[in-house]
Amino acid sequence: MSIKTNDEWIKILSGRLNPGQLSTSEGERYRHSHDESDHQPVEPDVVCFPESTKDVQAVLLIAKDHHIPVTAFGAGSGLEGSAIPIRKGISLNFERMNQVLHFAPEDLLVTVQPGITRLALNQRINRHGLQFPIDPGADASIGGMAATNASGTTAVRYGVMRDQILDMEVVLANGSIIHTGTKAKKSSSGYSIGGLFVGSEGTLGIITEITLKLHAIPEHTIAASCTFETPRECAEAANSVLLMGIPVQRMEFVDAPSIKKVNEYGGYGLPEKHSLFYEFAGLTQSAIEDARLAEELMEDLGAQNWHVAADAEERATIWKARHEMAYAYRHQPGVSVTGGDVCVPISKLPELLEHGRELIEASGLEGGLLGHIGDGNFHTCIVYDPESIEQKQLAFGINDQLAFRAIELGGSCTGEHGVGLGKQKFQESEHGEALALFKNMKQMLDPDNLLNPGKIFA
Amino acid sequence: MSIKTNDEWIKILSGRLNPGQLSTSEGERYRHSHDESDHQPVEPDVVCFPESTKDVQAVLLIAKDHHIPVTAFGAGSGLEGSAIPIRKGISLNFERMNQVLHFAPEDLLVTVQPGITRLALNQRINRHGLQFPIDPGADASIGGMAATNASGTTAVRYGVMRDQILDMEVVLANGSIIHTGTKAKKSSSGYSIGGLFVGSEGTLGIITEITLKLHAIPEHTIAASCTFETPRECAEAANSVLLMGIPVQRMEFVDAPSIKKVNEYGGYGLPEKHSLFYEFAGLTQSAIEDARLAEELMEDLGAQNWHVAADAEERATIWKARHEMAYAYRHQPGVSVTGGDVCVPISKLPELLEHGRELIEASGLEGGLLGHIGDGNFHTCIVYDPESIEQKQLAFGINDQLAFRAIELGGSCTGEHGVGLGKQKFQESEHGEALALFKNMKQMLDPDNLLNPGKIFA
Repeated sequence: MSIKTNDEWIKILSGRLNPGQLSTSEGERYRHSHDESDHQPVEPDVVCFPESTKDVQAVLLIAKDHHIPVTAFGAGSGLEGSAIPIRKGISLNFERMNQVLHFAPEDLLVTVQPGITRLALNQRINRHGLQFPIDPGADASIGGMAATNASGTTAVRYGVMRDQILDMEVVLANGSIIHTGTKAKKSSSGYSIGGLFVGSEGTLGIITEITLKLHAIPEHTIAASCTFETPRECAEAANSVLLMGIPVQRMEFVDAPSIKKVNEYGGYGLPEKHSLFYEFAGLTQSAIEDARLAEELMEDLGAQNWHVAADAEERATIWKARHEMAYAYRHQPGVSVTGGDVCVPISKLPELLEHGRELIEASGLEGGLLGHIGDGNFHTCIVYDPESIEQKQLAFGINDQLAFRAIELGGSCTGEHGVGLGKQKFQESEHGEALALFKNMKQMLDPDNLLNPGKIFA
Repeated sequence: MSIKTNDEWIKILSGRLNPGQLSTSEGERYRHSHDESDHQPVEPDVVCFPESTKDVQAVLLIAKDHHIPVTAFGAGSGLEGSAIPIRKGISLNFERMNQVLHFAPEDLLVTVQPGITRLALNQRINRHGLQFPIDPGADASIGGMAATNASGTTAVRYGVMRDQILDMEVVLANGSIIHTGTKAKKSSSGYSIGGLFVGSEGTLGIITEITLKLHAIPEHTIAASCTFETPRECAEAANSVLLMGIPVQRMEFVDAPSIKKVNEYGGYGLPEKHSLFYEFAGLTQSAIEDARLAEELMEDLGAQNWHVAADAEERATIWKARHEMAYAYRHQPGVSVTGGDVCVPISKLPELLEHGRELIEASGLEGGLLGHIGDGNFHTCIVYDPESIEQKQLAFGINDQLAFRAIELGGSCTGEHGVGLGKQKFQESEHGEALALFKNMKQMLDPDNLLNPGKIFA
């Protein structure tokens, strides 16, 4: 293997790909330098747009030959910098590998290329009465969602991204192309390697095909909300729903400051209290029964302002408000927002939510807590002045304290955003001796450290 | 490292363990030579009964030092020979590590040692309104169920063993003790290695603690059954239930010959037709609604003999009959029974079930098809005279043909029994180039090939 100048390996790449599949333009390098987080942008040397698995394989083999880092890029909607090519090299953009390869409604399965976004996929399949329900908020690419093990508001019902994937085609650093599973719903054959690639942020291999489970669109859906005086009461109420076995489609917590913020942003007129937002879905009578029982339970627990959306339009408005809460913070001119993503056993949520509010109040910064309370997962949105080193340190300090406390409580430093750059400092605390095994896995699968180098652990 | 005689390493083991934690008796060696399959028994040199993780670690370190194979043993209820110590050495029996270490009903979680059986666990937690629903039929140990990724009749509702596990403590071949996860329901931190150890049959590490998700016991449960003229119609009807999104707790197929067999065995008086057995469970009104819709759907599809169990006793009888079907075949004196375990995309089931019946009819052997039709997973029970080489070849030939056909149809050679000894021949067909990665994983985690050597792949 010879060391060559940038120009030489880019020339070789150009020779292998079609014209237009490779760009070194300033605009493309800028677009691929960042995600939606506030991590430091880094531009790749070149952006490639593969159109097939063979293209991906070719890029990886050239990268291997010339020792060039390769970082996969989906929709750029990540929140921990996973797609930032911090060692430069090649950004591998999947937007042209966005096809549905095989749709099998009779098997509740679809095989897609990684570049398709979740909304594009749903647009294709909803007319058949089927949905891919995982909803992280952003219109992320399915490949990016797999790479970070994304989830969101419906995980309480359907599980996380890892739970949806039966099979993947993955190109390894050595160019070999493997499948991680079959199209059957269950298997006890071989070693289960699929779950390992999910959430590995492109550091172990590059995903080029994904077979997903689909779900029937529920016959009937009901949205409702209620309020409590404290975050602790919200957490305890949400846990009661789970313990009673009432199936919820979504169950979200939003603290009072965030409700106030989104009211200001979108004029929603929501009661400005700590709130729970519910969705019940299923066969019509079942969904009605679920909502009725939840209402009774919430009343018993002292909830106020129980409100059921009158129609589909009001239901959509409620979830629009929920999804806009992070934007309501980010929308303000001249400020930056940092977000946390801790996940703990549900019984620890009351304590951690209270701790979160205390930390924010003590800091004097503006900030809110909101999240997927049925999974024990919540986010912070903490606003700071990017010109003030003190404010930035305060804001990041709150997230760090919450993450370390979550780990102490038996939880995780990231429920769904991934490690990327922001959560590396917690890896040893959370994983202990397993971290050595992670590093051995990385060494085995990517001995030259070319696949998204510098992510998950240094 | 010095090579010593059997006596020497056994003496060292004896010195480390307490008296009574080690046996070389004929009885114990025989008990640990086989599982419930008809694979060739092999006796270990010694049986160890660890009482703690430290004991397991000590055994593994002595084994490493003296190059002695170690094979974990749960309840001995496996069906593919996974627990047979084919290279002799140490059988590691977990029956003394059978404690509930931490029960957290408020988090719907329990942490157990691997030797506890699923019925013992349920006995402990049912009084709290909670259940661990995975039901492979046998009263298997939780460790064995994890090691083979077991599932059974309720997987259609709750998923497989891999889906239930949040965290495991695992002792690696080098003696290091790792945790694979946290107690939080979701995490995107680090590499997800838990799923890899689940189903690895003790070939990558020894599981010493398991944190399981629990589920609320449904408020109301309804059992029902119906019949069709052909296996194909049964498969198509089952798929219609899934496509309509009717939640089922169990949905089982049993072919007419197996119904006849179990009627003879237990006097159940079931209609001797190809049958579907249902369980609907949830909040009372929801379960009633689910059963009503399923009944309408089955009638539309031409089902006969729709029957709802009148009470809990009749419901228990129905499921007792379902679980006794394999025994009904095995019960006969002087015969052996071989069982298959294929899993395919649901739309391929009609074809594969028909093919299975044709193969059995053509062989002239007695046999039946039954299984977890909502997962695309079914078993064969094929009866043969163990004295007849021809019959044995015919019986095994049917399972082989079904397994290869399942793989061709995009499925798996084993839905839930594991690879053990019986499914090794299918590994290359099913996994292709991934098999090389499996071998690298094994090499990395167990470089001396001491953990259950000779399993999954040679």
